[in-house]
Amino acid sequence: MLGNTLDNVRKTTPLVHCITNYVTVNDCANALLACGGSPIMSDEPLDVEDIQTICGGLVLNIGTLNKQTIEGMKVAGAQATKLGHPIVLDPVGAGASRLRTETAGMLLDECAVTVIRGNMSEVKALAGAASSTRGVDANPDDAVTDENLAESAQFARELAAKTGAIVAITGAIDLVADAEHAYAIRNGMPIMGKITGTGCMLTCIVAAYVVANPDSKLEAVIAAVAGMGAAGEIAAVRMQPVDGNASLRTYIIDALYNMNAAAIEAVSRVEEIA
Amino acid sequence: MLGNTLDNVRKTTPLVHCITNYVTVNDCANALLACGGSPIMSDEPLDVEDIQTICGGLVLNIGTLNKQTIEGMKVAGAQATKLGHPIVLDPVGAGASRLRTETAGMLLDECAVTVIRGNMSEVKALAGAASSTRGVDANPDDAVTDENLAESAQFARELAAKTGAIVAITGAIDLVADAEHAYAIRNGMPIMGKITGTGCMLTCIVAAYVVANPDSKLEAVIAAVAGMGAAGEIAAVRMQPVDGNASLRTYIIDALYNMNAAAIEAVSRVEEIA
Amino acid sequence: MLGNTLDNVRKTTPLVHCITNYVTVNDCANALLACGGSPIMSDEPLDVEDIQTICGGLVLNIGTLNKQTIEGMKVAGAQATKLGHPIVLDPVGAGASRLRTETAGMLLDECAVTVIRGNMSEVKALAGAASSTRGVDANPDDAVTDENLAESAQFARELAAKTGAIVAITGAIDLVADAEHAYAIRNGMPIMGKITGTGCMLTCIVAAYVVANPDSKLEAVIAAVAGMGAAGEIAAVRMQPVDGNASLRTYIIDALYNMNAAAIEAVSRVEEIA
Repeated sequence: MLGNTLDNVRKTTPLVHCITNYVTVNDCANALLACGGSPIMSDEPLDVEDIQTICGGLVLNIGTLNKQTIEGMKVAGAQATKLGHPIVLDPVGAGASRLRTETAGMLLDECAVTVIRGNMSEVKALAGAASSTRGVDANPDDAVTDENLAESAQFARELAAKTGAIVAITGAIDLVADAEHAYAIRNGMPIMGKITGTGCMLTCIVAAYVVANPDSKLEAVIAAVAGMGAAGEIAAVRMQPVDGNASLRTYIIDALYNMNAAAIEAVSRVEEIA
Repeated sequence: MLGNTLDNVRKTTPLVHCITNYVTVNDCANALLACGGSPIMSDEPLDVEDIQTICGGLVLNIGTLNKQTIEGMKVAGAQATKLGHPIVLDPVGAGASRLRTETAGMLLDECAVTVIRGNMSEVKALAGAASSTRGVDANPDDAVTDENLAESAQFARELAAKTGAIVAITGAIDLVADAEHAYAIRNGMPIMGKITGTGCMLTCIVAAYVVANPDSKLEAVIAAVAGMGAAGEIAAVRMQPVDGNASLRTYIIDALYNMNAAAIEAVSRVEEIA
Repeated sequence: MLGNTLDNVRKTTPLVHCITNYVTVNDCANALLACGGSPIMSDEPLDVEDIQTICGGLVLNIGTLNKQTIEGMKVAGAQATKLGHPIVLDPVGAGASRLRTETAGMLLDECAVTVIRGNMSEVKALAGAASSTRGVDANPDDAVTDENLAESAQFARELAAKTGAIVAITGAIDLVADAEHAYAIRNGMPIMGKITGTGCMLTCIVAAYVVANPDSKLEAVIAAVAGMGAAGEIAAVRMQPVDGNASLRTYIIDALYNMNAAAIEAVSRVEEIA
């Protein structure tokens, strides 16, 4: 049951160490608290080993990387790998610059990454597939559609097989795959693209779910992705004419806070793709 | 028509590369999205050249500068200058420290700055005029008033002539000037000073407007400034007795999101100053 | 009268220089504005001496410390000490890593710290008492309860005597002590723990209160702590079923904005502990 994975987050309050960008970091922390996890941010190479040791998992988000934080990600990633803690990699802007593409690739090579979470352009860039991104948004040519769904699912499964990571590609249709199975998730609303940080928040939430569900990681990622989409739907319904994207941001985090197992079960639209 | 400049932002979704302070960066990103632009933040010297290349414009905001981000601003500014991309400089706290005054001056010297956007104390400090700031707020002695309006307009036009940049000085009365023309804009509300980030957000929005309106940059800056003031007015009207500055912040970004060409036309109070 | 201390903040608009973490920095700035202070953030070693010089006080929050910001804290702390400006130290995560524990200890040794504000686990780690933290949250074993209140008050008074600082330990029951007197403050709501940043915001507010009340610092800290708790209570009452922790964050800052002397007098629950 997908909903159980959220219950496990709430029961265990997983402590998630986040090395993430400074644009959306506050929303990431509040989103983690909303879903039942607990955040701690630390990117200094001299600090991250100790911090990772007391945590259950690690988020590596390269949204505003610099030389110091890249080193922090390497040290933290090595420690998480050594301790067997789940690592979620968010390759923000991979494909948009050499440094981002190379750093994402280096982290994937050096760390035991448990989940890759990005948009299709970023994940393609990480996979070395020919692509170009439009900044931190996906290239429209990379959109997952009903027409290319089978092909996109195959790409996700192959990347999962090659890397050993669960692959979560989010967009109008979300895809979650391991080497054998790929699922399409049809939750969420286009207006979620009008706020910054829904992807970054999801990455952190995925980490909490995976830490709290060590024996059903694939299901946990699907539930986290569907739950974020559901939160977007709930938030969109709450919008009044005078509201805009700032209220939407508040409403999405509020919806994550009020989400429960039954709601995830009721609203998630998940199907396996052959 | 001022309103058309907003339509052009919405039609073209300008990608704006922001090197900005970590205090208000999230609001800057959401404000850019609200007005129809798309943000990407990057300050690492090894990253900024690639990122600037795929963007349409650059924001340089020195609100929390450090040695690494100063170097990032130099590299990004050189690339934007080379590519002919608009650069908007926000000299936050110029006059409050030698490092800020010198960095703002260095960026103005080395880069082809398209717009300078600050409060009067900061802009005076940047211009080398005798002044002192009160942190990141303007010195009350520097306030633009009806009494000193002609003199202030003359200062703005002269700085524009000297630097080749459009000068946007915001306060109770906003001024926008190029070498020939200066305009007073009487939108906005004093309560906007009770939240952090209205200036930083405006700087980013100005960048989106200028990128989207290459043939009418002065008009674009006026529209962006008037639109931000109008958003503040709309937000202030929405305030309930229980609301405070946090709700105001949300309401301002919401108002930017719901702003349209007709609203800017209807509410902007712009007059040329001889 | 406790409430007078807030009036003094509103009358004097103390400018507070914050070196604080990038997770909650925006909320810190808006909380300072809400209570009547004025924030300026600066962590670059080359910038902080000038900035501290024009400010009335300094916040040192080690929540996302790195080598550069540690150096910035040392330089700013030395300048504040030299100028006799109040310093408020927030030892975020002390006990969770060697770097944090050592940095907090170093700052306490080298600077004339006026107030220490943390949770019990952090303050115990800073005091060299045996303890372990759970990330940035207090270890439940460290909770101040009615059972250990006298003992906890004694610990706080002793630390105050040893360091010369006022000690503010916040949790379900808050403690504020100098060397002679300790007070329990029973304001606030458990749900405040579901947002990030209430502690960081309080630290900044404490700084504003202490700067504005040089002759009654202990009373100022008590009022700031009680006022933050009262803001949490007001915010909790405002919560609707659809609201979650993001709305709560907005409501807390709004309540700080609307707080006044009479409200602090009316709702604060303060008692001296023998």
